[in-house]
Formats: sequence, structure tokens, C-alpha cells
Amino acid sequence: MGTTTDLQSLIEEIHDEVRPLQGSGKVADYIPALASVDPRQFGICVENLHGQIAATGHTGTRFSIQSISKVFTLTLAIRGLGARLWERLGVEPSGDPFNSLVQLEYEQGIPRNPFINAGAIVITDVLLDLYEDPRAEILRFVRQLVGKDDIHYNPVVAASEGEHGHHNRALAHLMRAYGNIRHEVERVLDIYFWQCSLEMNCRELAHAFLYLANHGVIPRTGERILNASQAKRLNAIMLTCGFYDEAGEFAFRVGMPGKSGVGGGIAGIIPNHLSITVWSPELNDHGNSLCGITALELFTTKTGLSIF
Amino acid sequence: MGTTTDLQSLIEEIHDEVRPLQGSGKVADYIPALASVDPRQFGICVENLHGQIAATGHTGTRFSIQSISKVFTLTLAIRGLGARLWERLGVEPSGDPFNSLVQLEYEQGIPRNPFINAGAIVITDVLLDLYEDPRAEILRFVRQLVGKDDIHYNPVVAASEGEHGHHNRALAHLMRAYGNIRHEVERVLDIYFWQCSLEMNCRELAHAFLYLANHGVIPRTGERILNASQAKRLNAIMLTCGFYDEAGEFAFRVGMPGKSGVGGGIAGIIPNHLSITVWSPELNDHGNSLCGITALELFTTKTGLSIF
Amino acid sequence: MGTTTDLQSLIEEIHDEVRPLQGSGKVADYIPALASVDPRQFGICVENLHGQIAATGHTGTRFSIQSISKVFTLTLAIRGLGARLWERLGVEPSGDPFNSLVQLEYEQGIPRNPFINAGAIVITDVLLDLYEDPRAEILRFVRQLVGKDDIHYNPVVAASEGEHGHHNRALAHLMRAYGNIRHEVERVLDIYFWQCSLEMNCRELAHAFLYLANHGVIPRTGERILNASQAKRLNAIMLTCGFYDEAGEFAFRVGMPGKSGVGGGIAGIIPNHLSITVWSPELNDHGNSLCGITALELFTTKTGLSIF
Amino acid sequence: MGTTTDLQSLIEEIHDEVRPLQGSGKVADYIPALASVDPRQFGICVENLHGQIAATGHTGTRFSIQSISKVFTLTLAIRGLGARLWERLGVEPSGDPFNSLVQLEYEQGIPRNPFINAGAIVITDVLLDLYEDPRAEILRFVRQLVGKDDIHYNPVVAASEGEHGHHNRALAHLMRAYGNIRHEVERVLDIYFWQCSLEMNCRELAHAFLYLANHGVIPRTGERILNASQAKRLNAIMLTCGFYDEAGEFAFRVGMPGKSGVGGGIAGIIPNHLSITVWSPELNDHGNSLCGITALELFTTKTGLSIF
Repeated sequence: MGTTTDLQSLIEEIHDEVRPLQGSGKVADYIPALASVDPRQFGICVENLHGQIAATGHTGTRFSIQSISKVFTLTLAIRGLGARLWERLGVEPSGDPFNSLVQLEYEQGIPRNPFINAGAIVITDVLLDLYEDPRAEILRFVRQLVGKDDIHYNPVVAASEGEHGHHNRALAHLMRAYGNIRHEVERVLDIYFWQCSLEMNCRELAHAFLYLANHGVIPRTGERILNASQAKRLNAIMLTCGFYDEAGEFAFRVGMPGKSGVGGGIAGIIPNHLSITVWSPELNDHGNSLCGITALELFTTKTGLSIF
Repeated sequence: MGTTTDLQSLIEEIHDEVRPLQGSGKVADYIPALASVDPRQFGICVENLHGQIAATGHTGTRFSIQSISKVFTLTLAIRGLGARLWERLGVEPSGDPFNSLVQLEYEQGIPRNPFINAGAIVITDVLLDLYEDPRAEILRFVRQLVGKDDIHYNPVVAASEGEHGHHNRALAHLMRAYGNIRHEVERVLDIYFWQCSLEMNCRELAHAFLYLANHGVIPRTGERILNASQAKRLNAIMLTCGFYDEAGEFAFRVGMPGKSGVGGGIAGIIPNHLSITVWSPELNDHGNSLCGITALELFTTKTGLSIF
Repeated sequence: MGTTTDLQSLIEEIHDEVRPLQGSGKVADYIPALASVDPRQFGICVENLHGQIAATGHTGTRFSIQSISKVFTLTLAIRGLGARLWERLGVEPSGDPFNSLVQLEYEQGIPRNPFINAGAIVITDVLLDLYEDPRAEILRFVRQLVGKDDIHYNPVVAASEGEHGHHNRALAHLMRAYGNIRHEVERVLDIYFWQCSLEMNCRELAHAFLYLANHGVIPRTGERILNASQAKRLNAIMLTCGFYDEAGEFAFRVGMPGKSGVGGGIAGIIPNHLSITVWSPELNDHGNSLCGITALELFTTKTGLSIF
Repeated sequence: MGTTTDLQSLIEEIHDEVRPLQGSGKVADYIPALASVDPRQFGICVENLHGQIAATGHTGTRFSIQSISKVFTLTLAIRGLGARLWERLGVEPSGDPFNSLVQLEYEQGIPRNPFINAGAIVITDVLLDLYEDPRAEILRFVRQLVGKDDIHYNPVVAASEGEHGHHNRALAHLMRAYGNIRHEVERVLDIYFWQCSLEMNCRELAHAFLYLANHGVIPRTGERILNASQAKRLNAIMLTCGFYDEAGEFAFRVGMPGKSGVGGGIAGIIPNHLSITVWSPELNDHGNSLCGITALELFTTKTGLSIF
């Protein structure tokens, strides 16, 4: 990868190449607030450790970050609990559709990893131990990562998640039955639904992920978020578990740690180099952004950048 | 089977034969109110269609009927909905531990049968469509079957079930996610936990079950509860699904339709002949009364009575 | 049920009523020899303990009895091993499609019951311990039950089963891995495929099943095949496990112990009364004869005969 | 990482640190030939792209490479079939114990990835399409990678694998039932058992894996084995699937692509840098070398080398 100008041309080229794919995916429709998003939007943004940015498409439009928020809450939980966190959940890929109760029951309420819904709900439960007001803390933290004060959540999305969240309630009550949810289920889920409704754009998200490409330190400010070992391990979890039951395929085709959300966003990093985000609301059969995954595959193929 | 005197001797003989088994089972301990029951109690009562009764042991002591209540609520749901009921649940044995979420998820929220917890919760949801006050109706109905007005529920048990009912909440929310629970989960479960806490003794339960041995008609009063076909079918479900994952074993060893509860009660019937109840709080590994099952096996072996 | 003449009229009436169903099922097509059977055939035969027979349709045409043979081999294994047989397999309904490996692995090579393929293969393995030439013994036994010497197997079907039997090979090797198949897999399967290819007609099958309606004794000859308790228990297994994952539905709708085969045959009994067989090659989604099941439901409904 | 001398000291330090762990694992005992290996052996070898080697312990002792051979056969299959290979198997982590039939049945005979046994058996079946004598080709290829002619297999181990390979036979027959094994099962398995019995030592294995750290080219000879994209993708599969159901944990703790075998060997690579092998026969609960995994974790922690 050469100069920033080269990079800008490259992502514009990628943008052109993914355009024909638009229209062949399906916007998430389990809640009305997501279903009504204009499906034909696409944005891609790369930021390197020196703060150089290349961006094209709808990179200033905020979208629902959904499960990408799990990276932020996991970071907070690791900071607060350290290695003790892993007594309450695993780091293995789930091997099954992302909302399956089967494995959770088989493994007695211990979620396989922090990026399946059950695992993320345990993380939220942990945050209720660590902070008096987890919502305020999450917001404070995300704003710190972005370096901006006006990151907000979408109250319509949050309420809608709550109304349609019966499957997540089933997960939470099952874990409560096994003693792995310690706070009241509805209180935990309120925060969980809320965090999923946070809204960011591609530029903000790329900036926010830089600490993971930089051994745990925000490059611009030098603030340490995680120690190097923790950052490395979080990246490992993103690689093996960040894309529901398509994680292996993503590692195979793209080859970088990342996390996707049903809002159509994907954020990934190349350690020591850069972070990259894409957003395109149409999803493939596995619930990951159709154009987003292809764009990232083109990016690693064209640049030769990959962790492998 | 000869005279009533013979029958009385027979069940006393059975009582003697099961005594050595006492102490080798385990009282249900998932809620304190059940765990504190004196485990060494045993009662057995037979009543035939002519009202002749043979009874020995603690047949006057009331116990928590628990899942046996599912027979009564199913009867009410069949009366109210008829064959349309089977759009919402199946009649196949579950083949798995009684509280498994796996099959429920695999079969998209349709419980395999009305005697697993998920199925009984759907039945309760149905009763909320049929009756303004399902609790009052269930109570009225059970009192009609027993022919007594003082059948009651145990408020301590009901409250305790509620506190420890997270697994059932998981089931209900999962079915709500699939649209197969239509009322508010907590409202449905309140009634479900309440019905499990009803208390009856062996004599009352034996009397209450007689309509199932008599083609749907209460023998003493002539009141029709179900039509002959409905009664036959309910008996078939008891045979194939009445004993959690031990239903096949019960059919094999005992050979009669019946239903057990974790309170240690079992009620069964021989069509055209009699109903029989046993109560003994110690359970086997499958959650069925240890002495109860053996007593029933001895009964069918000694009398030659069996549906097979 | 009145006279034999009445019974004859009844089954002719049933024959008329199921006719419109013909054409809506699907003949087994996993092997060519079965796929080529004329689908529109139907036969029904009832024989009571006094040897009175009512029959209509293609009751003289032989068909592949397939899984119905499992009743005969199970009988031989019970006679040979007694209760020790149950150390190697269970008596619980399988709750899953009939050829699933899942439960077999979960339960460490112990099949749930003798009527799923895995269980029947264990039974064949047992027969290899009991008899030098199990094939000859099975043939001798079936001829004894029918009271005829010219019962044969179909070599084309047997060979074809062998060629397409990879799933059964998987089952057998898995059980061998767990030590529950003791003879060479191919030797066991040769016999298993052979027994499935036995051919009988409705009249022969109805006669052969009478011992199960008569406490283990062939009514015409007085020969004891099983003791009363064994016969009762075998009937219980037929009721809970005789129809793949439709056993509960069959108990519910029909209410008699029976066994079906993918050749389109079903044989059932009403204890103390009669045996009844139907044959119609078109199967429903569960692999049971479509017209056959409906005919049996009409039979129990119209006669009021049922074990419940 | 500094000089070769530093590296030598480092791995000696690691050797000292893992010594106390010896005795707490369990040597594979499913075949006698493996069970009889002296458990207290340990070797570790690092080779970088410049051919510099650091080694300590039993690095000259050959051991059964077992599943590590799957990397070599997969490489041959990728070379022969290219991307069409992925029509017959996936690249997703299995999420379940490595020899489970469950997912294979659920996914209709398509193994989740090439490193579970089912997947490796499909690869062997593919090699039978590609080569007249796959055994000769595998041997030729491994010798090319090692740069030595005297790599051999162990006939006792191969025969023993065959005798105890009933579970693998079940897998193969199941896939044959779904049409995903095209050659005769016993012929495929003969080769599969044979490849598992290949013997190499840590030095040979480290040298053989260098092409995976070098974009597909053997560094010493310049021979291209895979193109860069293929090598990258094979590394991705090793990372997500190389350690049975401990792959996520290995990525999390160690952070490099690798493959383990039940003989106690592990081979891994850091792209652009080096390959590293460890051997220690005692296994942890997941079937991976206990000391081996810890040694690799110490290595990445102490050097800071990791793909994350």
C-alpha cells in the first residue's frame, strides 16, 4: 500500500466494483426502524495509525451499529474484570446460527463467546456490577474513542429492539436459570437493547477502532485502553467469532479481525496498520453486509494486507 | 382382579414390597417448599368405576400435584378449542429431558406435546383466550372432578415456583418469539406456576381421574367432561408422553396411561376399569416417583391389568 | 363389533373411504425395487383370535415387509436373551427422524429402541450370537407364525438395500466404535438387509401377528412364542415406537400397537381381540402408509376398538 | 526477536518453564502404538525464513504426526482442484468435539472444514481423483517439503488405526450416503489411516511448514507450492479450525495459525517470519499437546510475535 492518494483511488475502485452487488441482499427487517433504511447506501473508510484517512460513499451517514457495540462493551468488561471475565463465557466460535439456544443449554448457561447475543448479554450483566450507570459509561467510552461528544443512541430503535426481543429474553432467562445472569433480566436487556441502538458513521467507527490496531492505545491521544496482550486477544476473538457462523469464511476470504452488525456495518483492523469500516445495509444469508464483506475481500486482495 | 377385599390386600402387599426402596430416591429440591417434604411417605389408592375404593398409606395427606395438573388444563383446552388446539402443539414424545429448549427451537416454537413444560405453558396461554379468569375456572373444574369444594393451591409453592422459574420463562419467551404465546409471558406463567401448586391427596386424585377411565364421563354423577374420542386421545397422550423421558419405559414396565409430577404423585387409569394413584416424594433419575413407578408395575403385574 | 359379515362390510366401507386419498402420497424410492411398485394398490385384512377373517383389496399380493420384520427379529431376541437384551438398547421413543445418528452418538452407541434402524441392527447382531444361521432361523420362525412354508425373501430388494445402505453402515460402524456391535459390520448388515426384503401379503401378516394379540400364544396351534409379560411389553414398544417419529400421532389417532414398513405395510393388534393389516405403497411425510394409517383410524373409530 | 542466539536462549527458557507441567496430561490411548510412547518427552524447534534454526529437547526424535498430515493433504487438494474444492467442504470452525457426526448429518454430508476427520477424509477422497497412487504422491510431496528422502510411515500405527477406526468408518459411510465420498470407503480410509501414521521430528516438521510462512514458496529452494492467496487462506483455516474445539482458545492465547495432532505434535507459523514446532505426547482435555500449547503461548508472549 502506497500513499494516501493511492489508497483513496483504491477504495473508489472497490466502491465501483461492489456496486453491481447492490440489490441482491436483504435489509434486516426484524424491527421496523431497521427495515426502513434505504438499502442502496454504501460507505467505506480507512484510517491508518498516523491519522491519514481515505473515504468514499456515505461515510458521513450514521447508522445503527448494532452488534459492533459488543466490541466496546467487551473492552470495558476486560478492563474492569481482567481474566476473571472468562469464568463466565468462552472464546470459541459458536458453529451455529448466532441466536441459537442449543449450545447455551448444552453448556449450562456459559455462552461460547462474547459476540453471540448470549455472550454480549453476559457482558452487559458484568457492566452492571462494574458501573452504577453502564449506559453513561458506555457512552462516555465510545465518545472517548471517537474523540467527539455527540455520539447518541436512537430511542426508536432501542424501544423497537425491546418490543421484538423475545428471543434475547429467552437467552437471558436461560442463563439466569444457570446463575450466569445476576441482575434482573429486564434491567440487563434494557441496556443491551440500548447499546445496539447506538449510531455512528463509517469515519467515526474507523477512528474508534484504531486502538485495536495499535496494541490497545488510541494513536492520536496516546491513551491506553487495553494492554497489548488484551488487545491482541480481543483481536483474536474478533477473528474467530466476529461474523456469526460466517467467521471462518471471513477469515478465509478477508483475513482480518473484525465485527459486523445487522445494521450493515463492519469494522475491521490490520494490526500495526489501520482500521477499516464499511457500511451497506443489505445483508447476506448469514446476516453480514453483502457489499461490505466483498469490499473488505477486495481490499485485502488488492493491498496484500492480511494477518495471514 | 377379584373383590374389593382382594384389592385391598393386594395394595397392602405392594406397599410392603416397595418399602425397601424408600431412601434410594431424591426429593425434588429445586424449590424449598418441595425439598422440605418428609421423603418417607407413601400412599396408594385405587377407585373403580363403581366407586369402590382400596387405599393404604398416606392417602389422606395432600401433596403438590405439580405436572399432574397438566391433565386438567389440557382437558379444559380440548373442551374449549377442540381439534384446533393441535395447531399449536404436537402429540409426539419429546425424546429428551423434559425441560429442553432444543426441540422447541428446532420446531419453531411448537412444543412436541402438552405434557412437557413448554406445551403446558401453551395450554395455559390458550386458557387465557378461553376464560376471563383461568385460575377460577381451573379450580372450579378440579373441584367438580373431585366432588369437593375445598381443593386449594399452596401460595408458598406458587411464589417459590415463580422465583425459580427462569427456565420456564426462557421457554415462554422463546415461544413468544415464534408467536406461539399470545399473552404476556409473566401473566401466563403466573397461572402456570399457580396450577402446579394445587394440592390433592391420593383419594381425591384417584376420584378426579375416573372420567378418563370412563370414556369422558364422571361415573358417579354422569357428567360428561370429554367425548369418548377426546378421552381416548388424551389417554394416548398420557401413555406416550406422561412420564418425561421415561414414557417408553413406563409403557413397557407398567402399561397404562398416566401422568406424574415432581411432587412424587402419579395418577393412572385402566380404561373401563379404574383409576389408581400413588404418592411417594422420592424421585428417580427421570424425575418420577421411585416407589410410585414400582408400585404401579407391581399392580399391573399382579393383577394382569394393562392396556396391552 | 358384531358378526364377521358386519366386519366384512365395515372394511369394505373403509376401503371406499380411503380411495380418494390415493395419489397424494409417495412410494418409497430410495431403492429401485421399491420405487417400481404400482402405487394404487390397497389391501386390508382383519383376523380375530377365533380365526375369523375379513379381507378386501389386494390382500393376496405380497409386498416387501421391510421394518415390520423388526417385530419378528425382536421376538426372537427376547426369547433368546430375555431381559438382558435391554442392556444393549432402550425402549424410549426416538423423538427424531428414524435414521438419525445424533441420538446414537449422544447416547454412546445405545439405540433408543429396537424399531429405529440402529436398534434393529443391534437385534440382528444379537441373533448372530444366538444362532449359527440367523437367516434360516428367522425364516423358520416367520413360517411357523404364518403356518406356511413358502414365505421367501426378494433377492433383488436385498441386494439393492445393500447397495444403498450407506447410512445403515454409518450407524453400524458408530455402534461398533462404542462396542455395541460385536460381529463384523458387513455380516450383520447382510442379514439386516435380507430380513427387510421378506415378502408377505396382508393375510399372512395378519395371521403372523395374532400371537401378540393373544398373550404370546399362536391361537390356532397353541404354541407359546412369548410369555404373557413379554408379549405385553413388546406391544408397549410397538405403541410408543412403532411408527418412526409419528408414533405419538398414531397412538393419538388410531390407538393400537403396531408396526409399519416403508413398503407400505402396517400390522397392528387389539389385545384379546384381533390383528389387522393394511398395505398401500404410498407413504406420508413420516414414511408411513398414507392410506394405511387413515384406514386404521377409521377402523378404531367405527368399531370403538382401541386400547385406550 | 533478536539474534539466533537470543532465540536459542528463549526456547531453552520456555523448555524449563513447561517442565513442571509434565505428568499432568494424558497420552492418546485409543491405539496401543500411541499409548506406549514415553510421555515425558519434549522438543521445540524454530526455523526462520533465512534457514536459521533454534532447537532444544527431543527435536530429533520422530513421532506420529497424525492430524498434522491434514495440512499436507489439504495443500495437495488445493493445488489439484483449486477453488472447486470448497464445493465439497466448508471453512467454518466445527464448534463441537472433533469427531462428532451431528453436524455432518445436519449439514447433509458436507464437513465443516478440512481439519475435522470428516473433512480430511473428503480430502483423501479428492486425492483419489487426482492421483493414481495418492500414497506415493503424499510421500513425494512431504519429502520435497522436508528436503529429505527418508520420511516414512509407521506400518504398526497405520494397521492399528485401521483396526480401531470404526468412528471414521461411520463418518465416511454417512458422507457416502450423501454422495460426498465417491470412492470405496475402505480404499479411502486405508490412505487416511496411512497418512496419519507418517513420522517426522520437530526439525523436519518446522522445515516442512516454512512455505506457509512464506506466501506459498519453500524459502530454501524457491519452489512454489501454493500461490500467495492460497497460502493465506490455508493459514486462515489453520487459525480458525486447527485445534479441534480449542481453536478459539489457541487463537486467543497463542495467536498464530497452526495444526496439532494426537501424537502430541503442533506445527505453527508466523507469516513472513518463521515456523515453529513443538512435540510433547501428553494431551489436554481437548486432545492437544498440553506442554506444546503452553510453550507456544510462552513463545508469542515473550517474543511479542503474533498475527494479532
